[in-house]
Amino acid sequence: MSAPRIVLHEVGPRDGLQMEPGAVPLAVKEAWIREVMASGIDIVQVGSFVRPDKVPQLADTDALVHQLSAGEPARAVLSALVLNEQGLERALACGVQMLCMGASASETHSRRNSGLGTDDAVRRIIAMARRAQDARVPVQLSVQSAFGCGFEGPIPEARVVDIARAYVDAGLTRLSLADTAGHATPSRVERLFDTVLRLAPDVECTAHFHDTYGLGMANVFAALRVGVTTFETSFGGLGGCPFTKLAAGNVATEDVVHALQREGLRADVDLARLVAVARAVAQHFGRELPGTVYKTGGLKARSAA
Amino acid sequence: MSAPRIVLHEVGPRDGLQMEPGAVPLAVKEAWIREVMASGIDIVQVGSFVRPDKVPQLADTDALVHQLSAGEPARAVLSALVLNEQGLERALACGVQMLCMGASASETHSRRNSGLGTDDAVRRIIAMARRAQDARVPVQLSVQSAFGCGFEGPIPEARVVDIARAYVDAGLTRLSLADTAGHATPSRVERLFDTVLRLAPDVECTAHFHDTYGLGMANVFAALRVGVTTFETSFGGLGGCPFTKLAAGNVATEDVVHALQREGLRADVDLARLVAVARAVAQHFGRELPGTVYKTGGLKARSAA
Repeated sequence: MSAPRIVLHEVGPRDGLQMEPGAVPLAVKEAWIREVMASGIDIVQVGSFVRPDKVPQLADTDALVHQLSAGEPARAVLSALVLNEQGLERALACGVQMLCMGASASETHSRRNSGLGTDDAVRRIIAMARRAQDARVPVQLSVQSAFGCGFEGPIPEARVVDIARAYVDAGLTRLSLADTAGHATPSRVERLFDTVLRLAPDVECTAHFHDTYGLGMANVFAALRVGVTTFETSFGGLGGCPFTKLAAGNVATEDVVHALQREGLRADVDLARLVAVARAVAQHFGRELPGTVYKTGGLKARSAA
Repeated sequence: MSAPRIVLHEVGPRDGLQMEPGAVPLAVKEAWIREVMASGIDIVQVGSFVRPDKVPQLADTDALVHQLSAGEPARAVLSALVLNEQGLERALACGVQMLCMGASASETHSRRNSGLGTDDAVRRIIAMARRAQDARVPVQLSVQSAFGCGFEGPIPEARVVDIARAYVDAGLTRLSLADTAGHATPSRVERLFDTVLRLAPDVECTAHFHDTYGLGMANVFAALRVGVTTFETSFGGLGGCPFTKLAAGNVATEDVVHALQREGLRADVDLARLVAVARAVAQHFGRELPGTVYKTGGLKARSAA
């Protein structure tokens, strides 16, 4: 494996923490995020601009962005998720450097998550993305439940491609396919990303996998094979989706970094630092997380022949 | 994915149980194995013919084979591991249907495991295999530590291919590459199995992966891609190797079966039965095992679009 630089997007502070019953103090989050940034991870999703009464765990996202933006420029891009126009304006006001937004390919998931059916949600997201672009903030548009849904089961691939095409037709080519419920398998990952990457020459794809059925890492390698260049991962494998019936955490950041490094990619990332973060997160919550490498430690470089 | 039938070899009763401090009563083992056989798994490795004082957990292997061979013919092939000539004779005497034996590509692992360096171990294994063939018992020969060693670190690929070639030159073409310490990565898996499969037209390969660093399932898919047709797995992901410094369990049987079924393979296997076995094993040991699907339950067929 060689060629394009793989980009790593840590989503634990958002996708991981939104599933936890209690809020993590701002200073603790900040310490974890600063360590992730120092490790060489490219983008960190610090939170989501949702209603504080709905997701109190992420109520401090504005404050966290301010805190992390203070002092010397951060080594990583600070991203955040936005679900609606109010959240978008809050995000733009506090200086987030990249915005993630998306629509679910599952009608049921879409209605539960956004109150809109998929088609309406796609139109709304495209309008929001244009507003962000006008404010000169880069956007990444996702198709959620792209490989199946906890409520609906299988999602037709054509449905996912249609949404991706709507984004691309609107000139929005930084795309993410999210396996929200963990239904993806390697052959479907290859087929769907390959199709979406061919929609236009400038399409760039991010893969977001949950490891509900033990296929997360196999899906990462399937995505790599067809030219996916960005991966969203979560420290320790913490995470899930509160709006789907069954979803485990994302693939673990430190497991993916270790795997990439064993394959000769991203040797610049400080794996030991990421292992320490995952251990700190596990210790904070007082339980084992799904990640593997934070428990076993990574293989030493001498073993990476 | 399509083409050749994938063969499943359950090694939990051997590779899994040999790592556990206490011996599991024969009747309990037998119940687990009968359920695995009833699920449609093709081969079950019931134990190892080692010295009872060295591995007391497997001291009942002869009795177990007798027990499982009694009554109506078993639906699965009963296999066992043998390490030396004495074990081989015990195995032949009790009517095992398939014998697994091998040498380690790691000089250190080989000496600790067999008391011999790799070259001598290979010669001994070939002689033992011929003895088994004379007794009309099929043999599978493995290269252990084929992707790296807990003691030595990286193992040169040429070393592994040399051992495989020695087997093939001796007319022994049913081969297994074992990632004893969990060092394999998808690109190395593809390269090494592809090379070994090309050594002769009748070579058949088995893959044996441990999931020490979270790459087990990705390695299974890499092996599938280059034509590996048999996989050794362990219920619940139980297992490890007592002679290497660091090794986690094998990839979990029910995780692999679930993954194959989502890809349209081995729909005949009764996944629910395997999930129940893994749950029984976890309950017996009173702890969580590494497997994923026995915890989440598999995806229903309707989700396997």
